Amino acid sequence: MSPEPNPPFAFPHRHLLGIAGLSPSDIEGLLASAEEAVSLSRQVEKKKSTLRGRTQVNLFFEASTRTQSSFEIAGKRLGADVMNMSVASSSLKKGETVLDTALTLNAMRPDIIVVRHHAAGAVALLAQKVDCSVVNAGDGAHEHPTQALLDALTIKRAKGRIEGLKVAICGDVLHSRVARSNIILLNALGAEVRVVAPSTLLPAGVERMGVTPFRTMREGLEGVDVVMMLRLQLERMNGSYVPSVKEYFARFGLDAQKLAYAAPDAVVMHPGPMNRGVEIASEVADGPQSLIREQVEMGVAVRMAVLEALARHLPNA
Amino acid sequence: MSPEPNPPFAFPHRHLLGIAGLSPSDIEGLLASAEEAVSLSRQVEKKKSTLRGRTQVNLFFEASTRTQSSFEIAGKRLGADVMNMSVASSSLKKGETVLDTALTLNAMRPDIIVVRHHAAGAVALLAQKVDCSVVNAGDGAHEHPTQALLDALTIKRAKGRIEGLKVAICGDVLHSRVARSNIILLNALGAEVRVVAPSTLLPAGVERMGVTPFRTMREGLEGVDVVMMLRLQLERMNGSYVPSVKEYFARFGLDAQKLAYAAPDAVVMHPGPMNRGVEIASEVADGPQSLIREQVEMGVAVRMAVLEALARHLPNA
Amino acid sequence: MSPEPNPPFAFPHRHLLGIAGLSPSDIEGLLASAEEAVSLSRQVEKKKSTLRGRTQVNLFFEASTRTQSSFEIAGKRLGADVMNMSVASSSLKKGETVLDTALTLNAMRPDIIVVRHHAAGAVALLAQKVDCSVVNAGDGAHEHPTQALLDALTIKRAKGRIEGLKVAICGDVLHSRVARSNIILLNALGAEVRVVAPSTLLPAGVERMGVTPFRTMREGLEGVDVVMMLRLQLERMNGSYVPSVKEYFARFGLDAQKLAYAAPDAVVMHPGPMNRGVEIASEVADGPQSLIREQVEMGVAVRMAVLEALARHLPNA
Repeated sequence: MSPEPNPPFAFPHRHLLGIAGLSPSDIEGLLASAEEAVSLSRQVEKKKSTLRGRTQVNLFFEASTRTQSSFEIAGKRLGADVMNMSVASSSLKKGETVLDTALTLNAMRPDIIVVRHHAAGAVALLAQKVDCSVVNAGDGAHEHPTQALLDALTIKRAKGRIEGLKVAICGDVLHSRVARSNIILLNALGAEVRVVAPSTLLPAGVERMGVTPFRTMREGLEGVDVVMMLRLQLERMNGSYVPSVKEYFARFGLDAQKLAYAAPDAVVMHPGPMNRGVEIASEVADGPQSLIREQVEMGVAVRMAVLEALARHLPNA
Repeated sequence: MSPEPNPPFAFPHRHLLGIAGLSPSDIEGLLASAEEAVSLSRQVEKKKSTLRGRTQVNLFFEASTRTQSSFEIAGKRLGADVMNMSVASSSLKKGETVLDTALTLNAMRPDIIVVRHHAAGAVALLAQKVDCSVVNAGDGAHEHPTQALLDALTIKRAKGRIEGLKVAICGDVLHSRVARSNIILLNALGAEVRVVAPSTLLPAGVERMGVTPFRTMREGLEGVDVVMMLRLQLERMNGSYVPSVKEYFARFGLDAQKLAYAAPDAVVMHPGPMNRGVEIASEVADGPQSLIREQVEMGVAVRMAVLEALARHLPNA
Repeated sequence: MSPEPNPPFAFPHRHLLGIAGLSPSDIEGLLASAEEAVSLSRQVEKKKSTLRGRTQVNLFFEASTRTQSSFEIAGKRLGADVMNMSVASSSLKKGETVLDTALTLNAMRPDIIVVRHHAAGAVALLAQKVDCSVVNAGDGAHEHPTQALLDALTIKRAKGRIEGLKVAICGDVLHSRVARSNIILLNALGAEVRVVAPSTLLPAGVERMGVTPFRTMREGLEGVDVVMMLRLQLERMNGSYVPSVKEYFARFGLDAQKLAYAAPDAVVMHPGPMNRGVEIASEVADGPQSLIREQVEMGVAVRMAVLEALARHLPNA
């Protein structure tokens, strides 16, 4: 049992719905708290009592073994009682019934609900209706704030800083909540953000998000410090967006040759799960510049930091 | 950590298989104990150690996210180790194999098994074969005792008493274990119980259960203190029992107009999940007379009370 | 909370991948430790703190409610945080992606991963890639070491010893990891092992495993002390291996008549789940010589012993 950090970091929000709305000091505070969680998870007894007697519910309207597991481990290491609730969207009828599910859950007096939903904005709507804290674990193409936080922590540990770094986010930017949250966070902390994608996978007016778009990996990766690859939704391939997996990999898949355009000490990231041979080659995914496994470890730490931060805003807390 | 209630309530049964067989003082004792659990669940640290080191298994042969979650949260708040076991009936072959599943589980030395099964009587059969305590979480059209207890607690908190109240139970009484358990409990505590349903959804000889049947909402709701709506199994609609959803709602769905037949301070209840626009209108479900969310909260509290009561009957306890 | 056994049993392996590779004293040590776990599980407060703050993940690539539940209860009784992860093999693409799943999990810093996989050798491969301890909960037709340990414990408690006993393993030896692990363990502890099966269900050269093969139950069961039945995979019936369920039962199913060939005090075992009327008759399964329920209880105890033994090999432990 570790002693409480002293003094505790004061997070001024009841929910974590997105990176938008967080100040740089909110973000820095979470990252500093997550560093302590990294240490705790490397101990033999990796357990605190911060959330003892609290009820955390992981409410997933969209399956995600990886993210749900990360939140489950994070909650348990803080001593919370964690309950998983997977709601197949087939068993729901629409908006109103999602709310009925949330309100039912709310009546069981949880302290924190972690929500993933396939529709952008659904998590924020739900947060307005419940009495407890809500964490957005991904809502449609909108935001995935803990992913952006874990990416920032991974970069900061590797590079010592975020300000001034050149970061290229590559792939299906159009559909990616990971890209969106990362762009907002990296801009807030002063990085220079580029996006690299075929024009069919770039949102219109992406420049207004404060990023520079590139159409080729050669131009986009030129001299960057960080290469963030995005997962390609294979079910969208061979359709309107991209011609074929093979051609996509040839033009936008990260292999050693394309990585050589980046700075010699550039690091490679991917939110997982990877499509090897589609958006990333194994030689790079498993190579010395890859931080992909470290991202997963930072995921648990960042989620612990978020849960602890919100715990200070619970009713009567 | 809350202190133990003092002196503890002595529950004279090893299992909770139904409301039938409970004395009024058994029921009153559980309701009083549940009141304490309501307070605990509203604290920041909502945790006792009554079931520390005990193993609770939720054995669900029929899926029910809501009831299973309620029992899971209840057990964890009492400090038990809770294990969920969902057994698809497709993977079972019949009577004997259900018993094999139960006997296998029994050999793992659980203290309490919470069982839901689609066949009336299956839970009682199972209880005869195991060494631990069994809670019936719903067996076919037979009983659902914790639902009746949570309904009673909800009524008592709203009205101050149960004796002498007029309660109308409306809808698919024929197939409803909720109706059955509620009728037994409300009669035991001295309420005057009516049932309101089309004749195809009323059991033959329902009067022998101590209730007065009505065929129209206008007559059945006249002056009642409590309106309990039942969930309509939509898969049974448009068949032999009811002509169509639309017609059913027109005749038996609870809307503001029909609710006006009841006493001005009548309360509205529903065991959930609701079919909005089928058995209940949203204006009523979300209106000021609705206690539907409170029922869910009372569900966790009543299950905590039941688990604690049975814990005093465990081997060597 | 029970006191720690004193002095603790020193298990010289980081993983438990199979019975092959264990010395007789490793096996004896685990069995002795499991005896203590039997006592603990029979107490009201069946809980130790040996694994407090440790993270145990049950990673099942093949569904097994029974084995997963046993490991879950075992871990929770030792105070671990247990997380279940069921990975449908349909969602995986092959070798490399199984490793990605394992490496992702490994990055979350678990202490122990319990793995079941349909391919022989998959668990050992996975163990090479992770930093924590791995327990094989069954890999294809290769090994199922905790099943063999629980069988040994059951025999030892019933017969007082294993050395010198005559044990007949009957049924689908060809596809059975249970048979394989049991043969290795029973030979290591000095039992005399026979296998009884139709020639189509016997591996070629089974004699080289140190067992004597028999083609009839009459010859194979003659005077044995232990009859171990194997589960028949029904989907393999009526194919190349066996002509029909009815004929199989007539020739190799254990009923009272065939059991009479064994020693009068012979015990009957089955790893479960049983196909009643296929490989075993109910009169025997539920009869006085059956230890089938006791096997399940010993399963939890043996898994507790294994988890505790491996906990002494965790990083920094």
